[in-house]
Amino acid sequence: MDDDILIIDDDEQVHDSAIQSWKVLIVDDESEVHRITKVTLSQFRFDGKSITFLHAYSASEARDILKQETDIALVLLDVVMETDDAGLQVVRYIREQLGNQSVRIVLRTGQPGQAPEDDVVESYDINDYKDKTELTSQKLRTLIRASLRSYRDICSLQRNKRGLEKVIQASKGIFEKTALDTFVEGALEQLTALLELEDTTIYNIKHAYELKNTELEMLHSTASDKTETDDLQQHPILQLAIKDKTNIYQESEVVIYCKNPRHNLIFHIEGTQQLSEVDTHLLNLFTENIVVALENIRLNEVIEDNQKEIMYRLGEVVESRSKESGSHVKRVANYTALLARLNGMDNEQVETLKQASPLHDIGKVGIPDAVLNKPAKLDAGEWTIMQTHAKLGYDMLYDSDIPLLQTGAAIAMYHHEKWDGTGYPNGLRGEDIPIEGRLTALADVFDALGSRRCYKEPWGIDSIMELINSESGKHFDPKLVQILNENLDLFLEIKQKYVD
Amino acid sequence: MDDDILIIDDDEQVHDSAIQSWKVLIVDDESEVHRITKVTLSQFRFDGKSITFLHAYSASEARDILKQETDIALVLLDVVMETDDAGLQVVRYIREQLGNQSVRIVLRTGQPGQAPEDDVVESYDINDYKDKTELTSQKLRTLIRASLRSYRDICSLQRNKRGLEKVIQASKGIFEKTALDTFVEGALEQLTALLELEDTTIYNIKHAYELKNTELEMLHSTASDKTETDDLQQHPILQLAIKDKTNIYQESEVVIYCKNPRHNLIFHIEGTQQLSEVDTHLLNLFTENIVVALENIRLNEVIEDNQKEIMYRLGEVVESRSKESGSHVKRVANYTALLARLNGMDNEQVETLKQASPLHDIGKVGIPDAVLNKPAKLDAGEWTIMQTHAKLGYDMLYDSDIPLLQTGAAIAMYHHEKWDGTGYPNGLRGEDIPIEGRLTALADVFDALGSRRCYKEPWGIDSIMELINSESGKHFDPKLVQILNENLDLFLEIKQKYVD
Ligand SMILES: [Fe+2]
Ligand SMILES: [Fe+2]
Repeated sequence: MDDDILIIDDDEQVHDSAIQSWKVLIVDDESEVHRITKVTLSQFRFDGKSITFLHAYSASEARDILKQETDIALVLLDVVMETDDAGLQVVRYIREQLGNQSVRIVLRTGQPGQAPEDDVVESYDINDYKDKTELTSQKLRTLIRASLRSYRDICSLQRNKRGLEKVIQASKGIFEKTALDTFVEGALEQLTALLELEDTTIYNIKHAYELKNTELEMLHSTASDKTETDDLQQHPILQLAIKDKTNIYQESEVVIYCKNPRHNLIFHIEGTQQLSEVDTHLLNLFTENIVVALENIRLNEVIEDNQKEIMYRLGEVVESRSKESGSHVKRVANYTALLARLNGMDNEQVETLKQASPLHDIGKVGIPDAVLNKPAKLDAGEWTIMQTHAKLGYDMLYDSDIPLLQTGAAIAMYHHEKWDGTGYPNGLRGEDIPIEGRLTALADVFDALGSRRCYKEPWGIDSIMELINSESGKHFDPKLVQILNENLDLFLEIKQKYVD
Repeated sequence: MDDDILIIDDDEQVHDSAIQSWKVLIVDDESEVHRITKVTLSQFRFDGKSITFLHAYSASEARDILKQETDIALVLLDVVMETDDAGLQVVRYIREQLGNQSVRIVLRTGQPGQAPEDDVVESYDINDYKDKTELTSQKLRTLIRASLRSYRDICSLQRNKRGLEKVIQASKGIFEKTALDTFVEGALEQLTALLELEDTTIYNIKHAYELKNTELEMLHSTASDKTETDDLQQHPILQLAIKDKTNIYQESEVVIYCKNPRHNLIFHIEGTQQLSEVDTHLLNLFTENIVVALENIRLNEVIEDNQKEIMYRLGEVVESRSKESGSHVKRVANYTALLARLNGMDNEQVETLKQASPLHDIGKVGIPDAVLNKPAKLDAGEWTIMQTHAKLGYDMLYDSDIPLLQTGAAIAMYHHEKWDGTGYPNGLRGEDIPIEGRLTALADVFDALGSRRCYKEPWGIDSIMELINSESGKHFDPKLVQILNENLDLFLEIKQKYVD
């Protein structure tokens, strides 16, 4: 027997060698048939691969093997075994029970009378019908070759179909994302699914980068070691993708390149198998969809940016009457958002607060110049008028249906309440003051103390913190004051970034 | 010869009958082989369909037929004809030149010596190899049946694959849309492509409806007759889809149902063929994508709505200082948009103008109370101050990157210029005044005259038009005044809709 042929009846080994050979199952109750078939095909190769034989000596054994081994290419199937139609029952089992449409089935019968050819071929989903007597070694080789060719073509079509279904699934997955970060994570996930890496996640590493100018910024990574990822950015395959603005498919890694006027994303997946032409076609299809989805995200971002800017302008227009500095609303917005985030609020809440915060003094539009811009201390009557700006702002916004303006209304109303109940307009106390008000109160005062006003010079940070700490539990929510103390450097970064 | 069998050598007829039969091409230089094959298979049926034979008596004839007829299921192919390997050349032609991988090819040779079986089966992509002598009528029937079965399975996989590719293409097409109207048109187009109706567009009618409360509103239709479409809305299949909230696939029509919290879309396509299970699976897949795309559109609309409302609020906050009525900015926005549309501007320009128009008096924030709200006529100095609101507004907005605020800046700057050059701040004349200014000027005055102000009662429409017409070519762009005159009813509808 030739060394090329693997005659393996041991399950373990079969599994290992399966990748490099065609599985052919011989089902026959005569062991001589098994032997002759193997000998005849000892030199046989198709598409550069040899045959691995599996052996069943009864219909029941055949069923067990077929259930286990889902990648059998061909079954050479005797008809009469335990019963006169045992083989025919196996055909039904394969096509109907197992739903296996791809395996090729050839009936080989020694007693044609038991299974009239026309009836059998018509009623059973088989691919050929042979008298054992007519199967010369020449005819057997032709039969095997034609069957394996057919199996290969059907498998390739099926793989392709499954791949396309995955692309559809994957695309749906990414089109459901509307923010860049979840989109990037989703795209990596779907790429992994497309590359069928689910089972080997231990061995592969996925990264997503955004190219900013010439720098690669890591957006997401499954690598455990951070220093390791720093080196990877210099990886030649990434540089190649960037240079050629295209996907790169190499032996064990894949780079997907997607660009639009705002984003330049690069996905890098290592530890893949060698990709077929079909695989790369599917990845190209999916890449086109990533690009469309990324464009949708860009459009969303543009609209969001517009909204943010409009809100700032709205705040600034109002502030312009009190001759306050242009960057006051931006700083207060950023302080408020930072406090909210450190206080454990979720991204959406933080973003809404940040965008709504410029509206805190919108009610000042209704305060007369004489009060608003009086260079001296306000008298009691003027002070009463001034205080109405909180409720006035609320009245301008509360009837809106949109959450952003409702939050704006709350901020306007409550940003002058104090923790100890001595604030206005309602004299609320402690946690009765909505969080929007407590956050903005601290952010607003922190900024006002540090800024130049017509009546005062900007304070130094030590004096500011001394006052704020002394007002903890009086003017301000003590928990928020603590957050400010513990993260002062982050707040000072904002102050630095938005100088007047 | 049996009546069931169609022996047709005429091209026209072949085409008509093709749908109901399997095409088998016999290629042989002996006419006796043709005759015997036909006689043997005279009663043959597979999957309820008979065989239509095509006949070629040389390799060259075979090539011509194969090029014409792309849906041949099986070729029974002689080897030795014009040349010793004429048949083998036909195999290459089919697989390589025509790229036809689905047709089954069986070599039938009378001179096996000319084409050694192992070599031929290995080197040529054929599906079986027979000596003419071994082909008994029984064996021929088995061969044909197995071949047709294989052809049917491969075609079904290929159709499925093409269908999935179309779903991917179609989905990309709809995800590229960001507005409801283009989305609806695109979805209908892609549905048509999926249903392969391109060739029969004359016979089918497509409609898209939006369900509002219980009323179907037609969004798009390819029907030529408008009254015809009115009846269709009562069509039971539409009512069924609405009731069951699901797609309906019937013999010759398809209803696709898609719903999200804002939109309830129904696509109705008539004149389809009976759909297979595969087709309905693909349509279901595509429907899922339509739903995702529709959700993206809804999110866009929400953001757009927010932006519109924020812009109105911004305008209203400013107006609140001059104690003007709340609906003034909405009316001016709508008048401006209507004038722009009637003046031939595109949708995007109209929308931008509409949203930016509330900012026309934003500069008034910088005008002191004493001037802005003076109950008497302004003196010369006060008037000069008042006029600065145009430039002040421009200064607040011009440095923004976003088109909406840039348009706002232009509107603020130019809405008090006059056609004859007597306006402010720059005394521009005629078409030197940017269109944003000319449009808003007319809309603003048209509204102001019709509204109650602290110093005047609202005018009647006749007096308003008398004044505006007398100012045509003086204060106002005469072309815009003409548009206003010709479409006065549309403007009065807006006045009615946004009463104070
Ligand atoms: Fe305030
Ligand atoms: Fe004005």
